Amino acid sequence: MEITLSELAKLIGGEVSGDPSVVITGVAGIREARPGDVTFLADPRYSRFLETTKASAVIAPPNAGRSKKPLIICENPYLSFVKAVEYFFPNRDSYPRTIHPSAVIASSANIGKNVAIGACAVIEEHVKIGDNTVVLAGTYIGKRTTVGSDCLIYPNVTIREEIKIGDRVIIHSGAVIGSDGFGFVKDGEVYRKIPQVGNVVVEDDVEIGANVTIDRATTGTTLVGRGTKIDNLVQIGHNVVIRENCIIVAQVGIGGSTEVGSGATIAGQAGIVGHVKIGEGAIVAAQAGVVGDVTPGGMVSGYPARDHKQAKKIYASLQKLPDLLKRVADLAERVAKLEKGQKV
Amino acid sequence: MEITLSELAKLIGGEVSGDPSVVITGVAGIREARPGDVTFLADPRYSRFLETTKASAVIAPPNAGRSKKPLIICENPYLSFVKAVEYFFPNRDSYPRTIHPSAVIASSANIGKNVAIGACAVIEEHVKIGDNTVVLAGTYIGKRTTVGSDCLIYPNVTIREEIKIGDRVIIHSGAVIGSDGFGFVKDGEVYRKIPQVGNVVVEDDVEIGANVTIDRATTGTTLVGRGTKIDNLVQIGHNVVIRENCIIVAQVGIGGSTEVGSGATIAGQAGIVGHVKIGEGAIVAAQAGVVGDVTPGGMVSGYPARDHKQAKKIYASLQKLPDLLKRVADLAERVAKLEKGQKV
Amino acid sequence: MEITLSELAKLIGGEVSGDPSVVITGVAGIREARPGDVTFLADPRYSRFLETTKASAVIAPPNAGRSKKPLIICENPYLSFVKAVEYFFPNRDSYPRTIHPSAVIASSANIGKNVAIGACAVIEEHVKIGDNTVVLAGTYIGKRTTVGSDCLIYPNVTIREEIKIGDRVIIHSGAVIGSDGFGFVKDGEVYRKIPQVGNVVVEDDVEIGANVTIDRATTGTTLVGRGTKIDNLVQIGHNVVIRENCIIVAQVGIGGSTEVGSGATIAGQAGIVGHVKIGEGAIVAAQAGVVGDVTPGGMVSGYPARDHKQAKKIYASLQKLPDLLKRVADLAERVAKLEKGQKV
Repeated sequence: MEITLSELAKLIGGEVSGDPSVVITGVAGIREARPGDVTFLADPRYSRFLETTKASAVIAPPNAGRSKKPLIICENPYLSFVKAVEYFFPNRDSYPRTIHPSAVIASSANIGKNVAIGACAVIEEHVKIGDNTVVLAGTYIGKRTTVGSDCLIYPNVTIREEIKIGDRVIIHSGAVIGSDGFGFVKDGEVYRKIPQVGNVVVEDDVEIGANVTIDRATTGTTLVGRGTKIDNLVQIGHNVVIRENCIIVAQVGIGGSTEVGSGATIAGQAGIVGHVKIGEGAIVAAQAGVVGDVTPGGMVSGYPARDHKQAKKIYASLQKLPDLLKRVADLAERVAKLEKGQKV
Repeated sequence: MEITLSELAKLIGGEVSGDPSVVITGVAGIREARPGDVTFLADPRYSRFLETTKASAVIAPPNAGRSKKPLIICENPYLSFVKAVEYFFPNRDSYPRTIHPSAVIASSANIGKNVAIGACAVIEEHVKIGDNTVVLAGTYIGKRTTVGSDCLIYPNVTIREEIKIGDRVIIHSGAVIGSDGFGFVKDGEVYRKIPQVGNVVVEDDVEIGANVTIDRATTGTTLVGRGTKIDNLVQIGHNVVIRENCIIVAQVGIGGSTEVGSGATIAGQAGIVGHVKIGEGAIVAAQAGVVGDVTPGGMVSGYPARDHKQAKKIYASLQKLPDLLKRVADLAERVAKLEKGQKV
Repeated sequence: MEITLSELAKLIGGEVSGDPSVVITGVAGIREARPGDVTFLADPRYSRFLETTKASAVIAPPNAGRSKKPLIICENPYLSFVKAVEYFFPNRDSYPRTIHPSAVIASSANIGKNVAIGACAVIEEHVKIGDNTVVLAGTYIGKRTTVGSDCLIYPNVTIREEIKIGDRVIIHSGAVIGSDGFGFVKDGEVYRKIPQVGNVVVEDDVEIGANVTIDRATTGTTLVGRGTKIDNLVQIGHNVVIRENCIIVAQVGIGGSTEVGSGATIAGQAGIVGHVKIGEGAIVAAQAGVVGDVTPGGMVSGYPARDHKQAKKIYASLQKLPDLLKRVADLAERVAKLEKGQKV
């Protein structure tokens, strides 16, 4: 595939600065790019690579400054780069819309038009799958679960019974949706299982990473809101409610019945206890241990998680702690001496 | 399904306070409940919902106080609620006891009476499965492994060869039992694999969460004791021994050869190094980093994990550290001034 | 299987100290060993078990001292023990080299000689599998992926399309190789997916644990270098580069585009942000939160991760912090008194 820089600029919505006739044949990150590639500059930390990249052209923001490299100047270089990637990989997720003969599909299942079902996939009784959805090999969908239209379910996913998946949802391999919530009640010495009779609702445009686990509610619903993106190996407990357009990074754990407001970001390996509320647009830093509510728009970090500005001060102060101990010991001696002197 | 409050009270072992003729049609949590539902009050943090819940009745402890809501007064409201849930969902885990024709079962496998085996499940040579056990679609059971009676193995589980699973064990989707322990020995520059020739023994009444990994022993046995409950995404290293009735919350990691005493609780995302001993009934707080033994009945938290009371003091003191630095600097100045004054 | 101690010593490269005619019938850890077993002593912490072990003989280092137990003295007891294990379990990983009739193999797939493919495994178009490789039940290999020779892929693994796996690679159950990188760009209120069009390259002699997730690159390659060993439930982000002979312990998370130098060790549950560099031979301690580069040969620990010696001092000082607060308050009072006295 080939396109001139000027044509590409039109396609992705930018202005060429430099030779518009340069021929572009691929896309790549700024460090890995080779001649023929277009790359992009979004993160100022990478601007030092602008002159050394082997790319033939760079998609850059208006404030990128001058460069010997041909540029496409865009308001949102990252977004424009995505459009370039989509141009060069137009059929990335196209799967033949066939039902593999080895798939096991219950006679009561309701399969939409133009659906693909992979080899050894298992679709149980009364499942409903919307139009254009792709279910790949080895995936299991339990009875009475509904999956919307235009979804992409990768191989070896498990979606248990009575789950609701919206439209345009992407679920990566190994994810488990609707496993039992972790609920037990002590009955003398032993733990007795609390039946987990609720469900999981995954709204439209959600993406769920590989080997993620989302537990069904004890009663009621565990909810993943529209447009929320969940990275790999995340654990979402029973009755958790995650609102729209949240970002949940890899290996995060969210305890039962906690609510995450819309637009919140939970960074990698953070843990949130059950029964708290993360406000709209809040940010929980990586590895934070959240034990209480977080205010809307707030940012917390550390263990136990505190307001990020305060936490940063604390963690910076920590470096001085060993020295502080010595200084206080020294002061104590000098004060004792002064006290002696005064008495004398 | 319908039942009057007085009938329900008899069934779950409590006394009605209020109108005994109220008709109950379902169960739900106190915040999500709708008219017709019975809910429960176990956690005092939720008592503020007692008057505002839409539930038609509440299962409550003797000290709940008076309420306009009809109540069922019980010693253990949570346990009584479980009985109510079981009443309304009597056949929750009932699966037709059939062997799906697409399941692949070795001729030497010994399958008990009344067993279900799902589509595309694979049962290898010399496997033994006890009566009434359910093995769902896509699950793999390796050669010479034995699974007891009345077990429920969800879809897409992997149980490797020569594992022993007791009776009434529940294993959730994506769990891997008996993967190789992580053992290598350095041979010059490279790591040479130590063959992992031990097994895993899972005793009766254990529950294992989704995408859990339990490694087989290098030699000998990795043990999960009777009645222990393991949440999702937990890692249990080779030769770990977990005794009876422990609670292991999501994303915990337990290093090789560590022993967890009976009745211990390991909270979410905690990590325990290898070769240590967690005493009976001990509690490891969420995200704790345990690097040594924990005494029976003890509670530890923080990184590195310390006695919880001490750790709480430390983490509370941390807030004052930035201010402390300033105060010590101020004191140092004043002491220096005093010293000058005294000299003069 | 039986072998005399003197024969075993020859086989594993050591010298007998004590009765060379002792008959050995198995292998075991020093605490679990029974009569007839040979065990080993590598970790000095276990030397207290030397006299009490029930093993019939012990593989020990030259400095082990004298013992009533028959010993085999070796330079590297652990390595010699591995050889003993290999002697007693010679066919540990031998699988019949057959293609199960229920496996689904695309006609364009190129399958080498002496390959095993398990029940319900799915091999897509244009996959290439090298000689002697074993692919077990339920595993999925996506189109145009190549797997080298002498690999062992356990059941229920997912390897997505266009991945390159080297020779002698071991991949444990539930691992997902080549899931999409977690990349989104904000487009107004919503997140738009960045197509992930790169791949994953896993070099020779790598081992990948159960339920590990390795994301494909956005563009270019996510790399796992030759001889690197990855434990269970590890997350490796898009465009991460891990060099040769690294050890990545369970539940570690490595953010996108980070580079891990050869011979590095990342201990359990550690997290590393994206876009940093871990030097050759560096060590990241368990649960560390790495937010910047780590120098070659360096060791870091704690949150945020600092030089390990400094971090150790800080974490030790922490214990004294509650007391320090009291001491400073006391000093402040005494200094105030002194100041009063001086004024007077």
